[in-house]
Amino acid sequence: MTVHKKFEEVTVKTESIYKGRIISLQVDTVTLPNGETATREIVKHPGAVAVIPLIGDKMIVVEQYRKPLEKSQVEIPAGKLDAGEEPLKAALRELEEETGYRSDNVKLVSSFYTSPGFADEIIHLYIAEDLVKGNANPDEDEFLECEAITLEEAQQYMRDGRISDAKTIMAVYAWQLYKLTGQI
Amino acid sequence: MTVHKKFEEVTVKTESIYKGRIISLQVDTVTLPNGETATREIVKHPGAVAVIPLIGDKMIVVEQYRKPLEKSQVEIPAGKLDAGEEPLKAALRELEEETGYRSDNVKLVSSFYTSPGFADEIIHLYIAEDLVKGNANPDEDEFLECEAITLEEAQQYMRDGRISDAKTIMAVYAWQLYKLTGQI
Repeated sequence: MTVHKKFEEVTVKTESIYKGRIISLQVDTVTLPNGETATREIVKHPGAVAVIPLIGDKMIVVEQYRKPLEKSQVEIPAGKLDAGEEPLKAALRELEEETGYRSDNVKLVSSFYTSPGFADEIIHLYIAEDLVKGNANPDEDEFLECEAITLEEAQQYMRDGRISDAKTIMAVYAWQLYKLTGQI
Repeated sequence: MTVHKKFEEVTVKTESIYKGRIISLQVDTVTLPNGETATREIVKHPGAVAVIPLIGDKMIVVEQYRKPLEKSQVEIPAGKLDAGEEPLKAALRELEEETGYRSDNVKLVSSFYTSPGFADEIIHLYIAEDLVKGNANPDEDEFLECEAITLEEAQQYMRDGRISDAKTIMAVYAWQLYKLTGQI
């Protein structure tokens, strides 16, 4: 895949501000295409996976509390990549940990950056079909509740604001397109 | 709109780590539903708008360098909310600044959180039709190039990785659904 560098901003200096448990923050000083200098605040993230788990005409979602939003949200199963972990393996791990289901029929939908203006977080989004029962096993500090919803219920959740994060809205659109066109 | 608080995490302490030009970072100590304590790394962001600008059978996109990714990306026009700015007004401002087009036919597609695990950033996504020529006027440190692309070209850009951010992939899906169903 060609990496495009149009209007490249060249790093003059990198200042590390914070290294946390999950994210870190740095401020880069850059040279702009016109020769001027600017600063860029950059959050580094290990990357994540998310899964659209389809069972019959329903999708499995999980409700959990999202501290940055100060409310609970209904989302597709997702989680961070462990160090060196292959995304597909992480997706299958998170699917089973959070929902108790396994699948041998998993396809990549897309890999996307959530906030390219200030963060390098990438999410690898998969679709999983032909689910079979495994063992749910959420992380220790993870409290969540699973539910299987129809497309119409998902769209209602979007109108109600119970589904309102990028990856889950993208999942609902992809699911609707899959139903309409037969294509991922 | 009801705010759901299932599995609420109650703040015990907030430590401010950094206040920047665009984002700030804080670490909250919280009490979990089981009584245990955990920390949450939280990026605060002013919020943003993005626009799907349709002209005939094409969508207008902008290419710009994304420092966190160290590459340029093709995205729909977007930008941060100014302090106190109403999202629809911001969307019309960014549309004209970045593409040179105005519109009186603008509808909200959805408002979504980009990274609810570590950031409060919200993007208000609009669709704009019946575009008329105004005046392009990018910000001083903003270097970008506009292009009008068909749905098929957008899908090819996604396969090539030139389009790979959440809001633009969501825009392409929403546009495809709009063409298929006539509904936003």
